[in-house]
Amino acid sequence: MAKVVVLYGSSRTTSNTELLTKKAIAGLDAKEIYLRDFTVKPIVDGRHAEHGFDEVDDDYDTIIKQVEQSDIILFSTPIYWYSMSGLMKNFIDRWSQTLRDPEFPDFKKNMSGKKAYVLAVGGDEPHMKGLAMIDQFRWIFQFVGMSFAGYIIGEGNKPEDILQDEMALLSAKKLNKELKAIKAAY
Amino acid sequence: MAKVVVLYGSSRTTSNTELLTKKAIAGLDAKEIYLRDFTVKPIVDGRHAEHGFDEVDDDYDTIIKQVEQSDIILFSTPIYWYSMSGLMKNFIDRWSQTLRDPEFPDFKKNMSGKKAYVLAVGGDEPHMKGLAMIDQFRWIFQFVGMSFAGYIIGEGNKPEDILQDEMALLSAKKLNKELKAIKAAY
Amino acid sequence: MAKVVVLYGSSRTTSNTELLTKKAIAGLDAKEIYLRDFTVKPIVDGRHAEHGFDEVDDDYDTIIKQVEQSDIILFSTPIYWYSMSGLMKNFIDRWSQTLRDPEFPDFKKNMSGKKAYVLAVGGDEPHMKGLAMIDQFRWIFQFVGMSFAGYIIGEGNKPEDILQDEMALLSAKKLNKELKAIKAAY
Amino acid sequence: MAKVVVLYGSSRTTSNTELLTKKAIAGLDAKEIYLRDFTVKPIVDGRHAEHGFDEVDDDYDTIIKQVEQSDIILFSTPIYWYSMSGLMKNFIDRWSQTLRDPEFPDFKKNMSGKKAYVLAVGGDEPHMKGLAMIDQFRWIFQFVGMSFAGYIIGEGNKPEDILQDEMALLSAKKLNKELKAIKAAY
Repeated sequence: MAKVVVLYGSSRTTSNTELLTKKAIAGLDAKEIYLRDFTVKPIVDGRHAEHGFDEVDDDYDTIIKQVEQSDIILFSTPIYWYSMSGLMKNFIDRWSQTLRDPEFPDFKKNMSGKKAYVLAVGGDEPHMKGLAMIDQFRWIFQFVGMSFAGYIIGEGNKPEDILQDEMALLSAKKLNKELKAIKAAY
Repeated sequence: MAKVVVLYGSSRTTSNTELLTKKAIAGLDAKEIYLRDFTVKPIVDGRHAEHGFDEVDDDYDTIIKQVEQSDIILFSTPIYWYSMSGLMKNFIDRWSQTLRDPEFPDFKKNMSGKKAYVLAVGGDEPHMKGLAMIDQFRWIFQFVGMSFAGYIIGEGNKPEDILQDEMALLSAKKLNKELKAIKAAY
Repeated sequence: MAKVVVLYGSSRTTSNTELLTKKAIAGLDAKEIYLRDFTVKPIVDGRHAEHGFDEVDDDYDTIIKQVEQSDIILFSTPIYWYSMSGLMKNFIDRWSQTLRDPEFPDFKKNMSGKKAYVLAVGGDEPHMKGLAMIDQFRWIFQFVGMSFAGYIIGEGNKPEDILQDEMALLSAKKLNKELKAIKAAY
Repeated sequence: MAKVVVLYGSSRTTSNTELLTKKAIAGLDAKEIYLRDFTVKPIVDGRHAEHGFDEVDDDYDTIIKQVEQSDIILFSTPIYWYSMSGLMKNFIDRWSQTLRDPEFPDFKKNMSGKKAYVLAVGGDEPHMKGLAMIDQFRWIFQFVGMSFAGYIIGEGNKPEDILQDEMALLSAKKLNKELKAIKAAY
């Protein structure tokens, strides 16, 4: 049975992005990870340091292990300043370390083949100004060999605005069906 | 005399991005801020919280004050995963708080009219895969009313690679002249 | 009552893009213009020629007059090679001439304030690879002051494929409602 | 010896784009094709027509044969409305026909492996608003398997403006060296 992991990049509880994502995973057994509840330090680039990367004392490894063991990843992020939140960016930046970490010898291989989805809500013309972020996720997924299976962009500013975004809700419903079908097929 | 502030988003000392930026500010009296030397916490979105944003105990305010008082800002960031570093993203995310902070009543007004430049070095086809990041900076600067005066994309992976990127170095040299002319004209 | 003009850039009759667009204008009194049925020559840039632009003997003026008199424009184009069709591009290129044509003294003013929509169907990951085209339409509309009121991207290759694209059809239905509401409100 | 073909999409003689391109091919034996001097009709999509594509009576085949036999292609286009000119777009649109044309049985195979460069001059912030066009060329080249070896964006409006764009001229000079080195190496 396909394992679904949701990475939440929102800094606010029950954010619009979370509300939208909950529709997409309704009735699914998904592992939900709220990045704001963990400490993930910014990467310190040790690729070219004599002794490589320093060990980091934070929650990153715990999270990335769950990500590595999943089959489907939902990147659920508010659009902050036209891109993913810093919370999520710091998490992804750390992949550069994991790619060289002997404790994760097959990280890239394990990531490749996973299905990735992006769910993002923004308040400032997200269907226009959020497209660069979609491009970036595409590059990111391509680098590690994940397939970019789809994305949903929603519009909202104030709490619960997203519940008025008819098309985003329909897309979430459709994604829910799709995820259930994938789960069933495994 | 125009005040120049450089925001470094690199996590590594004397990174390629820093080396390139140093060429651009050679002989200029610029305030250099290395974000990695400070603590900037991820934003906690308090826009819709009953009591607004919580006060944050970190170095952000010290930095943003210097940014607010500048005339020209250089955003110097390595391209990590096709975007600015998480260090820099967290810093910019916090602007959402400053925009509502009574201690910075004229933040947007003070930011508008500043000139912004981006200097970025990446290792994976940055002239192609870094363009989405340029788009994002454009939206960011537009939001606060800064003019996007120019950008330099360089290519490099290993330490000092950038010193082989002839076009990036020439661009930095040209930017240096431009900055000196602006300084002199104030 | 708001006047709606549809510009079809498809080279094939009852193309997927057309089928999708027909859903969006069902029951509306819209002026439909099939660019393939007209001759629109490529622009010859006469902006800096001694005598300005040469008069062009083709159907362009007839079409642009109808566009100029509309309130809402639907740009309905297949995604050919990751952008609008050459048919439609040649039509838009000619706007540079109209902007300087004494027979259209208020062209820019008349265009500004119109609402523009883009409907586009592509066969090669249009939700990813069609985003650059959306960017371009945004710049185009911004230049002449039109508001970019929305876009629908559909997926399809073979004839009638689009009828299987549930989300695109729903979006077209929603646009239909929106257009009817605008019409009624005028 | 590597064969270089230049495709000019300008509608004006000695346009800024042409001037820039001439710097890049100075002293090189390159085949220069001015699309404005030829007739290339818009594609009529016959992929799904009973009898396939109709034969087209124009100059397209003559041009594409020279392109097919080259090793390096320079796409030299003014930025019209934030994309390549309609002249050039119509030419590329026709590749869809060539891909199915029995007279060009190895078209895709022959195109793959070629090196492609884009040289483009625009008047409205081309370093920002021209990036979507670069994205499109990337997708185009990727589709047929060509490598996107580089691009130069220049700024200019009035005739000869480009001669003031120091960075563009330097880039062209550098490209010239690069092309000569490639030629010599074959």
